[in-house]
This record gives sequence, structure tokens and C-alpha cells, in this order.
Amino acid sequence: MNHFSSIDQLRAACRELGGPDARAADAASSRQSVLTKPQGSLGRLEDIAINLAGWQGRAIPKLDQVSVVVFAGSHGITAQGVSAYPAEVTAQMVANFAAGGAAINQLARAAGAELKVVPLEVERPTADFTGGAAMSESEFLRAVSTGYGSVSPDTDLLCLGEMGIGNTTAAAAVAAALFGGRGVDWVGRGTGVDDTGLARKAAVVDAALAFHGARLDDPLRVLALVGGRELAAIFGAVLAARHHRIPVLLDGFVCTAAAAPLAKIAPDGLAHAIAAHVSAEAGHRALLARLALTPLFDFNMRLGEASGACLAVNILRSALACHSGMASFAEAGVSEK
Amino acid sequence: MNHFSSIDQLRAACRELGGPDARAADAASSRQSVLTKPQGSLGRLEDIAINLAGWQGRAIPKLDQVSVVVFAGSHGITAQGVSAYPAEVTAQMVANFAAGGAAINQLARAAGAELKVVPLEVERPTADFTGGAAMSESEFLRAVSTGYGSVSPDTDLLCLGEMGIGNTTAAAAVAAALFGGRGVDWVGRGTGVDDTGLARKAAVVDAALAFHGARLDDPLRVLALVGGRELAAIFGAVLAARHHRIPVLLDGFVCTAAAAPLAKIAPDGLAHAIAAHVSAEAGHRALLARLALTPLFDFNMRLGEASGACLAVNILRSALACHSGMASFAEAGVSEK
Repeated sequence: MNHFSSIDQLRAACRELGGPDARAADAASSRQSVLTKPQGSLGRLEDIAINLAGWQGRAIPKLDQVSVVVFAGSHGITAQGVSAYPAEVTAQMVANFAAGGAAINQLARAAGAELKVVPLEVERPTADFTGGAAMSESEFLRAVSTGYGSVSPDTDLLCLGEMGIGNTTAAAAVAAALFGGRGVDWVGRGTGVDDTGLARKAAVVDAALAFHGARLDDPLRVLALVGGRELAAIFGAVLAARHHRIPVLLDGFVCTAAAAPLAKIAPDGLAHAIAAHVSAEAGHRALLARLALTPLFDFNMRLGEASGACLAVNILRSALACHSGMASFAEAGVSEK
Repeated sequence: MNHFSSIDQLRAACRELGGPDARAADAASSRQSVLTKPQGSLGRLEDIAINLAGWQGRAIPKLDQVSVVVFAGSHGITAQGVSAYPAEVTAQMVANFAAGGAAINQLARAAGAELKVVPLEVERPTADFTGGAAMSESEFLRAVSTGYGSVSPDTDLLCLGEMGIGNTTAAAAVAAALFGGRGVDWVGRGTGVDDTGLARKAAVVDAALAFHGARLDDPLRVLALVGGRELAAIFGAVLAARHHRIPVLLDGFVCTAAAAPLAKIAPDGLAHAIAAHVSAEAGHRALLARLALTPLFDFNMRLGEASGACLAVNILRSALACHSGMASFAEAGVSEK
């Protein structure tokens, strides 16, 4: 039932990406230039409107179906004391999502978005990746396929996020494997570890880099070897969104690390993605810079759950409200330069 | 009919400001610490919720009545070629606001806010301030009073903005008079002047500083001498909001410059204000830094009209949605650290 039955098949799918609709983007750009404002004066809101037009293939993009998908996974690496919270919090938070009590429930509602939570075998943690692969190839492909299949083709905008105690350590390992550097360059305080915990996280990443060595040269295998199921699922969802030409809002460090292999495989692999924010997690800013993604805001957030991605939805709605609703200079009888 | 009949009376009102409700802010802070998220992980969203609680005097703040007020004024200084657009655009844009065709109409609707446009004798430009006062004292007090009176005491949040061809030059003169430096330090391209226009703006500011000299030592007189009616009205509205304990979202360079004298008169004069964004207008970042205001975002916008302020409203709504809607650890049965 999996979308992907081998790493090679997945890799081939990562190379058939397609681009935005240049005609729709051009039409959106022309429209922006006649609206009653100095040219370019809406700054990033103009870029957003033109970008969404290209990916949706519509000169006037829409945000009727906004989907928030949060993937949850459990991590064997938690046994090494890399989180301030016990591992069972992952399952407890999945229950909190279902009950409507988490931040993302409130934020999705405020964004007018539909929230879907996808637990990935939360009762079965991945293996401790300092002494083996986090997942087997088939486990990895199953998680990627679940993520891929979770994206409905009629989505107008996809917000991605995650929940998984221990996953900032996995994300740091992924970032180090993809972009170089050691643990200390990529780990952060996650849910709030102290200095000892931070040093432990760095040591775990270094041990993983040493153990897996050259096997980490393959960006896809990186996610299987030192990632996690929710990271693999995010990767699958980002890929599905690209195949369906759905624009994506990325959340924080873990989400960005999960998407990053696509940019390693294809240089414009994340052209359909907007970085919603730069989080307080130490490695996120550097990771965004490596991916040439400019975040919309910096609110010192470090929650995950797609919280930052969701917060950006109303910015995009506002950008489109201007794009579709403003009068032109001619319509309004306003003098030009 | 004016709220303020003399500069001294206005100055006295600027010294009776009052502060936030510490009990409500403390209650909001306590609430944040039990919600199902790592402490502090919602970053600036937590600060916003606590800040609004303090000013509104409610542990659970509300945003039912969000008001956007855009003041418009005309500037005699336009005769010196300081804008890329002709002076009549101010009145034309006021008509565009009334017809619903401007950016702010779309943004106010997207923010669930009520838009009020207040033209201030748009048909009668202020005087060219390089050779005299922009306004007489009575004209100034009338504009401040109009701004003051435009704020309804039952407002939950006030977004302020302006429209006025030529007013980035006035704002640069205000900033230079308040914080030092020369024209070149504070002018920017406004609606889009070229290098010659930019040099002209700097020269106009320098001429104004030289002409008015030590009279600019009084922060209130600065607005009368080198400001504009819409700047004076914004100042009045910021003061009214403070007296009513209404939190304020400031927009761009002109709006911030108009509010700045209150911070010169009282060190915490803008404690009830949040800087929505840093605009592309060259002097805005430096001005925010002088006022110790950290903008929520940097979208390279330079439109005015309260556009940036309005864009921040849904961020505040999202912050409050988390604050009021999330479950506590105890309620959700989630393990703590």
C-alpha cells in the first residue's frame, strides 16, 4: 500500500518536481503593478501573492482549503537523556491534540485551517541511532508514504509540523549530516534542557555521525539513519505538495530539517516552501540560511506542532486580500507618478 | 471644543499617563506557565498576551473591538519636490479609502477590525516648514484634539496609520529634531523618489533644523513646527489610548515618529505601544531602536495607511487564542518536566 517501495523509487520521485506556472505568476505580478499603492510598497506581501499564484496556477490565488498536518513520532534516543520531558509526553500530547487543548488547536482555528494529526507508530520508538539505524529502509518508506498520502491534492496551502520528544536531537543530526559541522553547531535546548543536557545532545549527534559515517552521504538515507518517523513523514508531505503544486508553510527547526533533503537532491526542491518563522532553537537560523529561506518572522518560539507555520496563514490571507480586493489606479481615479 | 487649549495643558496630560494593571498581567503570566507547552516556548506570543492583559486590566484579554484609525493630512513641503507623487494624491486616496479600494480596506477586513479614516483639513496644506512653522499652535492643538477624540474608550486595540504625500519628509524632520542627526540620517525614498529626490529631502530637513533651531528642543513643539496634521493627530490618539489603557499597534516610520514625542516627555510613554513592523523607509529601524521598540516583523513594506499595524492584529488574536483556549498540564494529563 506504500507510495514508495524502494529508496531508488523515492529518489526518482524527488527528481520529477515540476515548477510554478510562470503565466499565472506573471499575471499576478502585472496585477500588483496597477493597484493603488506605490510599486513594491507592500513588500513581502506582493512576493507572497505572486508566489502563491505561480504554485496554484491562478492569477488570483485562493486559501479556501488550508490544511495543517502534524506528524508525531517516538524516539529511542530519548533513553540518552536528550529531552527535558519524559518520552511518554509524545503520546500524551497526541491525546491533547485530539481533545483540542494544545496550542496548535487554537492556532489552526484562528487561521481558519483544518488540523489533521497523524501519529506514526508512537507506541514503537525508533532505535537509538548512535548504535544503529533509527529506522529500517521499509520503516522509513512507510513513514514517507504516510506523509505523502496525508496531503489531499485539492489543498490550497499546507502547514506542516511535528511532535516528538527527542526530535530536536534527530533534527540536529540530520542537519549536521546534510550540511556538515558537529553536534555543537546544530543542537539547541529543545523543550528546555540545561547545559548538561545540551552537551549530551551534542555528544549524541557526534556519536551518530561517527557511527554512520559515509552512509550519511545520501540525503534520503540520512532521514532513515538518524531521523525519525515524523521527519520522514514531513519529507513525504513536502514532496507530495510539490507534485500537487501546493504551497507549503514550514514550521521550525525539526520541520525544516525534515524538508532539507529535498533541497539537497534538487537545487530548487523547496521553491514551493515558505519559511514561516525562525525559531529559538539554536540551529534553525543557520539551517534556513543554508536553504536560502527567509523566515517571515522571529518570535522566539520553540514549540513545534506547526505553531509558527499556522501563525503565518493569516499573513498570507492578508496578502491575498490586498491582491484580489484593491482597486487599480485607473479604477480609483488616483494619479500616478 | 478642543480637548487641549494650550501646549502646557497638553504637556501636563502627557505626564499623567498611568501604567498597566500589574495584577492582571501577573494572572496572565501565571496562566501561561501552566498551559501545555514548555515554559516560554510560545515566545513573543506569551509576551503579547501578558502585555495586553496588563493594559486591558483583564487576565484574559479580548479583541472584540479592534479599531483602525487612519489620519490624512496635506503638506506644504510637497512644493519642494519631496515626493514621487503629486500632492493631490492625498485627497484621491482618502476617496479611495471611502470607496473601499485601498490596501487598508482589505487589511482591516482581514483583521476583523473597524476602519475609520479621519481627513484633517486635507484641502488646506500645512506651511512649508523650511521657512516657518508647519502649523500654528492652535492648528496643532486642533489636530491633536481631533486625534485624541477619535479614540473610543471601549476600544480593545487601536491600530494607527496615516496618509499624506510628503509626510516621510516631515517624519524625518521630527526624528532628527527629537534624536539628533541630520537629514541624511533620517530620510528615505518614501513612495519612491530617486537619488536626486532623496538629496532634496535631506536638504529640506537640514534647512528646517537650521531655521527652527532651539525651538525644536520642546518635543511637543517639534510636531507643530516640522510635523503635520496627521502626525499631530496620531500623537493625540496615542495619548488618548494611554489614558484609556488601550494597547496600540504602531505602523511605519511616520506613525512611529508621530508617537515618539510621548517617549521624550515620559520615559515609559510608549509602554502601551507595540511596533507592528519595521518598514523599508530608511529611518524606521533607527527610530525604533531609539524607542527600544522591537518590531513584530520586517516585510519590506513602505505603504503607511496602518497597513503593517493591521497585519499584526491576527498575530495578537492568535496569541490570545492560545492564552485563553489551551489546556493546562493538569487538565490534559500531560507529564511535566
